[in-house]
Amino acid sequence: MKGQRYPRTERAQLAMMLEVVSYPKPGNVDRCHDYPDTRLEHFLASIISARRGLERAEEHDGRIGEIFRQIVADTSWHGGGNTHFGAFILLVPLVMGGDIEGACREIRQTTVADAIDFYRAFALTGVRLFETDELDVNSPDAIDMLCERKMTLLDVMRYSAPRDMVAREWTEGFPLTKRAARLLHQSGSGCGAIVRMFSRLLADELDTFIIKKHGAAVAEETRRRAREVLAGRGRLEELDDWCISRGVNPGSLADITIAGIYVALTEGWEWDSSGRG
Amino acid sequence: MKGQRYPRTERAQLAMMLEVVSYPKPGNVDRCHDYPDTRLEHFLASIISARRGLERAEEHDGRIGEIFRQIVADTSWHGGGNTHFGAFILLVPLVMGGDIEGACREIRQTTVADAIDFYRAFALTGVRLFETDELDVNSPDAIDMLCERKMTLLDVMRYSAPRDMVAREWTEGFPLTKRAARLLHQSGSGCGAIVRMFSRLLADELDTFIIKKHGAAVAEETRRRAREVLAGRGRLEELDDWCISRGVNPGSLADITIAGIYVALTEGWEWDSSGRG
Repeated sequence: MKGQRYPRTERAQLAMMLEVVSYPKPGNVDRCHDYPDTRLEHFLASIISARRGLERAEEHDGRIGEIFRQIVADTSWHGGGNTHFGAFILLVPLVMGGDIEGACREIRQTTVADAIDFYRAFALTGVRLFETDELDVNSPDAIDMLCERKMTLLDVMRYSAPRDMVAREWTEGFPLTKRAARLLHQSGSGCGAIVRMFSRLLADELDTFIIKKHGAAVAEETRRRAREVLAGRGRLEELDDWCISRGVNPGSLADITIAGIYVALTEGWEWDSSGRG
Repeated sequence: MKGQRYPRTERAQLAMMLEVVSYPKPGNVDRCHDYPDTRLEHFLASIISARRGLERAEEHDGRIGEIFRQIVADTSWHGGGNTHFGAFILLVPLVMGGDIEGACREIRQTTVADAIDFYRAFALTGVRLFETDELDVNSPDAIDMLCERKMTLLDVMRYSAPRDMVAREWTEGFPLTKRAARLLHQSGSGCGAIVRMFSRLLADELDTFIIKKHGAAVAEETRRRAREVLAGRGRLEELDDWCISRGVNPGSLADITIAGIYVALTEGWEWDSSGRG
């Protein structure tokens, strides 16, 4: 069944669901792996609880920042911590705009009010950006600074882009999301295709979430190991064990994977490999 | 976080999600087991796609039979076949009525039109009831017969109740759903509590879905083996293997488990064992 069959809200939820159940996805929560404080059911609960915010995005009911804040508020109540913050940064404009072109249009229209909402949403999650300057979301003066400098949400993403590949999707027209969707179309159907796409991204890109948490050397080591696996030297499961045992979690590539699945579904990609779907 | 925090639609989706990820749940799809044609992602896609029908139930937007037909139409498109038919029989009145008392009120008000919608929904699923008389849902004359006999949807459930424990929940005021919710409250939090509750039901009840598919002797053997496990003789994982290798799938107890989780969530049961939820 094609992606157009179901509304954008379900399509976004389906993309998040397919990403989290696909196995093995080195270093990330999947149907066979939990982290001690964040388990499969936290991810799935976050997907379910995102419904109202996604519906608002689908219906264009509010500014992008307002919707973002609602989704983060609705999905941050469980004990698993932030699970989909980066994914929502990508999905909200995609659901509002319908496709990448529409998402870019939404992004260009963001305002200072959207930037403030984004910061307030961030404060709800307890996520740290590991930045130390005056625009750190944990800085008490950050919101004053946004107003003073008249920074829109797109400006905030421009500011983060050098260090954050999710922000770069906003500023550069979703290049990796497009690539992820293309890879999916070339990789068959179902969760197997998602694993192949994710492995390819892992072998080609440096995950900025890993860089923030563990430094560039660990991100490079992860990419090198993923390349070895794709070259037939080593198994994906071993790379998964290596990542999990070190807490190396390619979370930004997981966010981009979700956005790529969403776009691919919109383009008619077949998620259901059982053939009847 | 208490069940009241999130709306009934999400609560019903959360109940279905928690049931399917809980492991080990002997004989059923869970996060570690697929059946060849029905995989974890089919169950999760069904949960996501049920949204519009559940919202209609929450908003009392339509008769119970109409809502039922919408949910079945919205969730039968994927390749995994019928995944939640029995669960929806229980959830739709619970979501409409808010709790068991309200659900019983909804059930008493069902009409012949609801019965017809139910039969039409059933026809969409390809599910067989393994009955051979003139009210078999696969009989071409069944709908004429419903009209002739002026059978409401509650009458249909009365007719099925001797052979179907889900129908008995309708006719007897949700006795096993209540018991499942009570067991959950006594079993701690999280998926572990769901496994303990499900194991208890499996040790005490004969699953009518197993009876229809494999006969009473297999259902009794399953119950006997579950009792052995609860008595400390044997492991749940072994019972799971025994069930899966024979296609013995306690699907009606899984439906009742979902309804029990929904009711327990409504009463404030803590699903999130990580403690922050």
